[in-house]
Parts: sequence; C-alpha cells; structure tokens
Amino acid sequence: MYNFAMTIEYDGTDFLGWQIQAEGRTVQGEIEASLQTIFQEKIRVTAAGRTDTGVHATGQVAHFRTASSISLEKLRHGLNGLLRPDLVIRSIREEDENFHARYSATGRQYLYRILRRPSALRWRYAWHVPYNLDMDSVKRSCTALVGDHDFTSFCQAAASLHGARCHVTDLVWQEKDDEIRLDISANRFLHHMIRAIVGTAVEIGRGRWAPEKMQQILEANDRKVAGPNAPAHGLCLYQVTYPLKHQPAED
Amino acid sequence: MYNFAMTIEYDGTDFLGWQIQAEGRTVQGEIEASLQTIFQEKIRVTAAGRTDTGVHATGQVAHFRTASSISLEKLRHGLNGLLRPDLVIRSIREEDENFHARYSATGRQYLYRILRRPSALRWRYAWHVPYNLDMDSVKRSCTALVGDHDFTSFCQAAASLHGARCHVTDLVWQEKDDEIRLDISANRFLHHMIRAIVGTAVEIGRGRWAPEKMQQILEANDRKVAGPNAPAHGLCLYQVTYPLKHQPAED
Repeated sequence: MYNFAMTIEYDGTDFLGWQIQAEGRTVQGEIEASLQTIFQEKIRVTAAGRTDTGVHATGQVAHFRTASSISLEKLRHGLNGLLRPDLVIRSIREEDENFHARYSATGRQYLYRILRRPSALRWRYAWHVPYNLDMDSVKRSCTALVGDHDFTSFCQAAASLHGARCHVTDLVWQEKDDEIRLDISANRFLHHMIRAIVGTAVEIGRGRWAPEKMQQILEANDRKVAGPNAPAHGLCLYQVTYPLKHQPAED
Repeated sequence: MYNFAMTIEYDGTDFLGWQIQAEGRTVQGEIEASLQTIFQEKIRVTAAGRTDTGVHATGQVAHFRTASSISLEKLRHGLNGLLRPDLVIRSIREEDENFHARYSATGRQYLYRILRRPSALRWRYAWHVPYNLDMDSVKRSCTALVGDHDFTSFCQAAASLHGARCHVTDLVWQEKDDEIRLDISANRFLHHMIRAIVGTAVEIGRGRWAPEKMQQILEANDRKVAGPNAPAHGLCLYQVTYPLKHQPAED
C-alpha cells in the first residue's frame, strides 16, 4: 500500500466544510470523487482538521492509501484538472505507512482576519468589524490564553474524548493598514475555539469588557460567559505541523 | 446642484464590467439603482474608467450630480447597505461643479497580478501562468514602453478620437513569493492595452520572443504583431489621480 499526503488550499465560501455529507458540496467529497475518477476505486481521504462551513485553508493536510502506483506530479496535475479553481492540491508526497494526517500532527496554525472597513475584494476572507477596536486591550487580554489551559469556555460542543486542554504555543495580533490579523498556533483546537476567542477579543477591543475579562472567562470553564463566535469566513487553516520526519519540503 | 465624487471598490468576477447594459449585472447599473432608491430620482453616474467584464477595482472614481442635499456619511452607509458585498463605496466627497471623473483625471494606475502556481484563494484576482518566466527579460523588455508613445500595437479597437498616444509614467514589475505584480501608470490607457502588454511580456518571459521584440512591436503600430491579451481577472484599477484641488483626503 502507498500512503500519500496532500497539502490542500481551498476557498471555503462555497463548501459545506471539509467533511463529506449526504448532500451538498464538501472538500472531502470533491477530492474523493476526483481520486475515484483517476484511480477507478473508492478512496477515503482523512484530513488534519475538519474545517467548518465557510472556513478557508491554505495548508490543510490530508492522507489517503491506495495500492496503485502513480507519478506524484501526474496525480497532482490530474486532480487540479478535475477540481474547480476554489480547491487546489498544492503538493503531494509519499509518506511511510504510519503517517496519519490527523493523529501524526503535532500542531495547527490558523489565521483570522478582521477588516476595519468593508472591502469588495476581501469580504470572503475577512470579518468586517465596524467598531473601533483598542488593539492594546485586545493584545493584553489574549496573553492569558497562551500556554496549556482548559478551553471549555471557548468550546462549542461538549468536551471531546480528549478533554478540553489545549496548549496554545503562539498567539500574535498584527495590524496592517485596514486589516487586523490573528495568528494562533496550538497542539489542537476545540470546536469553534478560535472563533469564540476572536469574538471575545472583539467585545474587549470595542470596550464592552475590560481586558481582564479574558482570564476570568478562561477560568470559568463555561461557554456561556465567553463572547459570541466570530464568523467562519475570517478563519483560515494556515499550516499543520508534523514531527520532522514527516515535514514536507518547501513547495 | 451638488456634484458628488465616489471612490469605489469592486470584485469584477460577477459583473459584466462597469458600463450599464440592457441586461446583466454591471457596476454602473447597481450603483444607479441604489442611488435611485435613496434619492427617488434617476441619477447618471460617470466613471473615470469603464472597466471591462471581469476587471476589478479598488480605486475607481465616479461622479454624479443631484439637487438633493444629503449627509455624505449617511449616503455612503445607505449605498453600502443596499449594495452586495462585492461592490463597496469606499468614500464620497463633494466636488466643485466642474469636476468630471473621466475628463478631470490626469492619471490612472492599474495593477496586474500573475500567479506562479494555482491558488484557490487568489484565482479570482490573478492569472495563473504555468510557465517559468525569466523576469529579467520581462523587466528589460518593458523599459521600451515607458514614456510618450503611440500604443496602436497594444490597442484592441480602432484608435479613439484622441489617437493612440499614451504617456506611461511608471511601469514596475515586482516578485514576491509565488506572485508577480505589475504596477503601471499612465495619463490614459487604450482598450485592452495593459492586457496586451502583459500577454506580450509573458511571451517574452517564457522565452518565445527576445526582450528586444517589445520595442519592435511598439514601433510596428500594428495590433497583430503583439502577444495575446492576458485575461481580464488579473487586472485591477488601483487609483485615479486628479489635479491637487480634486485629490481626496486619505480614507
């Protein structure tokens, strides 16, 4: 058996998220249909992160197994020829048999974009926040989140099998012109966790809550005390990291 | 009479260009319909540049006249509330009665984006060129275009009333990661002129023509000798310049 890993980019606007559904366009569904056309067999694709409806990716990773041998460049070109332009296979590499896109991953990096003004060219990829945000307060409040914590307060669903502990390794807010960007990395993220963090940060940035509130919310372990979820379309899965032996070469 | 000037941003993907048509969605048509809703009168809007189907803008300028008085901020919010998110009024200012978006303009700045790889998040705004381009050749060839020249060889239609002379004041190619960007400024541009320049530059960059060919094409005054038009969706009207008294304040 071959085990192939793909790095995938998609515009989430017109997808019902990653995971295949009985009806509707999904990233997994489109890729599996294209693989079936090429390999003439049913192939199951497993992703590092099952992104929600509307969430984008530039560095999603997924793997699939097949007994068929094929040139990797030919496979990439073949897939991109079958897929619509809002879904692109950036690279394909062969992995050892133990590689699993989700279970082998050691970290995920997402970015969330906020726009200070409406933009016709960027509205698909950023959340327009019409309030003036005090970014010093936002930055100060978010330092409470870095490190190993129980993120129950920022988790939509009931805690998973693996509990609600996540280790946030990086959390950086940057402002450039009319755009605000959050880069956040962790070993794992809970359901809607980044959107709840951004929604809470915006409440603080617009002055409805003091910066200290972030720490209090974290410690409350209660989703009801955090802010509303920021919309999905500002979120993008940027990179998935693996132990060194699995790191892909640069595109 | 009031004379209002607007700075406009649009994603050209789903528009049949600027100019209103009997059928189909156009930028002018959408703005005029929204103005009619607000002012309860038919209002004609005139743009600095009538961009083609698929061409984007972040700095289109247009003016319209009305006898009705209105708060500029209220008008901008009202219009953006009526328009879909792929068309945004960035700012509105009052101008003197002589201001004309097209005839008062002294310069136009466009940018053209080329992608070295397919991108699901940028395919609407850039042309994916699957060949390796020698950017030194491209840059060298384009120096021939800077200055005041007859651009008949790069003009789709028969020469206009004003002839085919244009003064190209700036022409800069830049490369960053997987993107190549052309910034080009001139007092005016002919129909499809930038797309013909980019299409020709790509022929040179991929080695089909020598860099000297650009100068020869320019001097030939014959559209048939230039390269094919690059696609519309890589092109974006970035800025329109006016004499100082008409320059808008920064957003």
